[in-house]
Amino acid sequence: MAYRVDMIPGRDGATERTRYLPSQSTALLTDKYELTMLQAALADGSAARHCVFEVFTRRLPAGRRYGVLAGTGRFLEALAGFRFDDDVLSWLSRDHVVDARTVDFLASYRFTGNVAGYAEGEVYFPGSPLLTVEGTFAEAVLLETLALSILNYDSAVAGAASRMTSAAVDRPCLEMGSRRAHEQAAVAAARAAVVAGFAGTSNLEAGRRYGLPAIGTAAHAFTLLHDDEEAAFASQVAALGPGTTLLVDTYDVRRGVERAVAAAGTGLGAVRLDSGDLMGLAVEVRRQLDGLGATGTKIVVTSDLDEHAIAALAAAPVDTYGVGTSLVTGSGAPTCGMVYKLVAREAASGRLEPVAKASTLKTSTGGRKVAGRRLDQDGRGLEEVVATGADLSLRSWQPPEDARPLQVQHVMDGAVDTRWVGASGVQAAVRRHAASRDELPRGARRLSAGDPALPTSYITV
Amino acid sequence: MAYRVDMIPGRDGATERTRYLPSQSTALLTDKYELTMLQAALADGSAARHCVFEVFTRRLPAGRRYGVLAGTGRFLEALAGFRFDDDVLSWLSRDHVVDARTVDFLASYRFTGNVAGYAEGEVYFPGSPLLTVEGTFAEAVLLETLALSILNYDSAVAGAASRMTSAAVDRPCLEMGSRRAHEQAAVAAARAAVVAGFAGTSNLEAGRRYGLPAIGTAAHAFTLLHDDEEAAFASQVAALGPGTTLLVDTYDVRRGVERAVAAAGTGLGAVRLDSGDLMGLAVEVRRQLDGLGATGTKIVVTSDLDEHAIAALAAAPVDTYGVGTSLVTGSGAPTCGMVYKLVAREAASGRLEPVAKASTLKTSTGGRKVAGRRLDQDGRGLEEVVATGADLSLRSWQPPEDARPLQVQHVMDGAVDTRWVGASGVQAAVRRHAASRDELPRGARRLSAGDPALPTSYITV
Repeated sequence: MAYRVDMIPGRDGATERTRYLPSQSTALLTDKYELTMLQAALADGSAARHCVFEVFTRRLPAGRRYGVLAGTGRFLEALAGFRFDDDVLSWLSRDHVVDARTVDFLASYRFTGNVAGYAEGEVYFPGSPLLTVEGTFAEAVLLETLALSILNYDSAVAGAASRMTSAAVDRPCLEMGSRRAHEQAAVAAARAAVVAGFAGTSNLEAGRRYGLPAIGTAAHAFTLLHDDEEAAFASQVAALGPGTTLLVDTYDVRRGVERAVAAAGTGLGAVRLDSGDLMGLAVEVRRQLDGLGATGTKIVVTSDLDEHAIAALAAAPVDTYGVGTSLVTGSGAPTCGMVYKLVAREAASGRLEPVAKASTLKTSTGGRKVAGRRLDQDGRGLEEVVATGADLSLRSWQPPEDARPLQVQHVMDGAVDTRWVGASGVQAAVRRHAASRDELPRGARRLSAGDPALPTSYITV
Repeated sequence: MAYRVDMIPGRDGATERTRYLPSQSTALLTDKYELTMLQAALADGSAARHCVFEVFTRRLPAGRRYGVLAGTGRFLEALAGFRFDDDVLSWLSRDHVVDARTVDFLASYRFTGNVAGYAEGEVYFPGSPLLTVEGTFAEAVLLETLALSILNYDSAVAGAASRMTSAAVDRPCLEMGSRRAHEQAAVAAARAAVVAGFAGTSNLEAGRRYGLPAIGTAAHAFTLLHDDEEAAFASQVAALGPGTTLLVDTYDVRRGVERAVAAAGTGLGAVRLDSGDLMGLAVEVRRQLDGLGATGTKIVVTSDLDEHAIAALAAAPVDTYGVGTSLVTGSGAPTCGMVYKLVAREAASGRLEPVAKASTLKTSTGGRKVAGRRLDQDGRGLEEVVATGADLSLRSWQPPEDARPLQVQHVMDGAVDTRWVGASGVQAAVRRHAASRDELPRGARRLSAGDPALPTSYITV
């Protein structure tokens, strides 16, 4: 049976064009056990217990000196879509995922609790309380999978991106990795790359959704489509102006550069090199461009760059780095290992008590945590201070005098602070990351493997 | 400014709850250069040239012996959503991404060409023509980013999953990695894992969308929520029945197992171990369960498993493997390096001509390709045969007598074959993968690093 490309036959014979595309509800981006735990907790009464969950990581990716928190804004945006709509509810009933009582509860689910955490873009270390979600067990437990999916992926990309922009020093880095990541992850990757200092992205949806600068050149296919390179270059310049970037390595780089300048004139914006020995090629192409009078024409390099390749090109006459695969896959660390743990809950007595897993190796510290970063007189980081205490809260904590508090309130009684979402959230995160990275000890920027750039002290108050 | 969690203020003062969530159009999951190339090609007339693009990979991830194609069904589903709706078109105009003529063209864009390729689930090798997209340059070039995003990610997960199910032999593997992947990638990962032999997934959206078996146990948070482990186990058994899986390592495994059997009786479905020395623990827990009479109670192990850990547990009394991080990140190979290359296009003469990039290292073979797998008399693979020829097509090719043709038609003149999409597409891919993997030489299943399990011969016909 065949159907037209824009029609997929639906469940009941109707056409559901978007049946297999992401729905506008985020509620099922969730592990089944969140819902079955809810069912059991609703039945035994514990679902109403007040709970504090924390997101943290036990360690940084091997050899990394700092992590970069990204995705908080996306999590807040996804909260708005965390509703169990009729489609979802009827599937949960029909497939007997949970019982009728639980389905009823989910039908009116809205998060009414509090969320606080490190500001998006902040650097972090093992144990840093990155996100604190507080509410009844029922409302807070459901958010585990969604929160971790978003923060683990986005922070993996931001952590890699920060090393790349650090290695590039003042040269712009451009995100071009969409094709090497899941199609929706690609949008998040573009956003996370910008949080960590990238200047733009090739991903159009990221451009539209978050107002990020959208950039692009041309593919080899465009040159091959035409009868010869001259025709391809002439067409691109006619359509996009001489400020465009011409891809010069389809046939022969030397002749490509000649033809590029012939097509666009000495005002040609840039040439792109996508293969070969980039260091040697960049030197030759720069000399050739200068010889042709195209002294203002820039050189963009792409082709499996990572932070080490970028650093190795520091002495080459390269103007811009286009980064793909390595960026969107976290440059060797494609996820962050963040976990979402219950650290305190209301006991039968009604009192909030710290809790923690006790067995074997994966132990954690119970109790709600607040954090600050101690700075020296020049504003350089000294250590992370993580405080735990029975009645501690963001408002009640008095951080040490030389410490900058690290957490902000994102959601209060179900009301989201709009500063942290959308385009403004991204811009705030860009500023936060730049300032926080500048605050780190100089050694933190080294690409070689090492220990976390700041130690963490745990204090009980 | 704060807003209720289910309302995000929109661009024009209206509430747009889902403004930052994936839209129902897939058209902007695309690199900007696809659209600017289109603009130039529309202006110079080459946009109407008939083109053949192929997806292939130049190499397998280091040491892997075969790749697994996954995502083809998702690509076909995404094609149905590849429409430039009013929101998208007005953004493209407002942000001057492309000119008015291109916006007009995009407004009526529908793919009317052909798509063929390896059946989803098929194993592949370097150079295998995994997907062939044929149409005008205009309609085919736009699909590059979307096709690669989907196939690169899904195949990365399926490639890892196949090694895991191979190492697990007859024991079921369950996908539990949603929290370690982008929230939408997690749905695709669950689907790809099932294609490569996983028995179920914890991801609810994957369960709903593709009819996959949804599975789950409980988190440590559920035990910690309660006043003691007894109360937690009693609640879970009351809600989910004695066939449930109890997580026994929150406090002390030995006492946890005791309490689990006390709560559920000897008919307890399973216990889950999520930390510690799984090999040693499994032996002890099996002995303890048998001693308590719970001889039918199964042991599920989780905790950073990968294919090597699974293989190492072969001698342990483990019944089921729950796999997360390593699976959804491709077990060291989080993307596949597939590319989408123009291999033939209509020349000024009107004739279809092979084309290929010629410079430096990244060369490729021009011309449309067809492929078969030669098998010996026992049905074991001998080699991959990839044929190129001027007038070659899927229908005209006569494969060698001992070769199984590897490509199927997915889309013909814009009409999608429904066998390859939705739940039926997944089931077809599951069968294809199992059969194709069985056909490989025995050495192909070794987990150690090695060369591709089958060599590839290129022939010109």
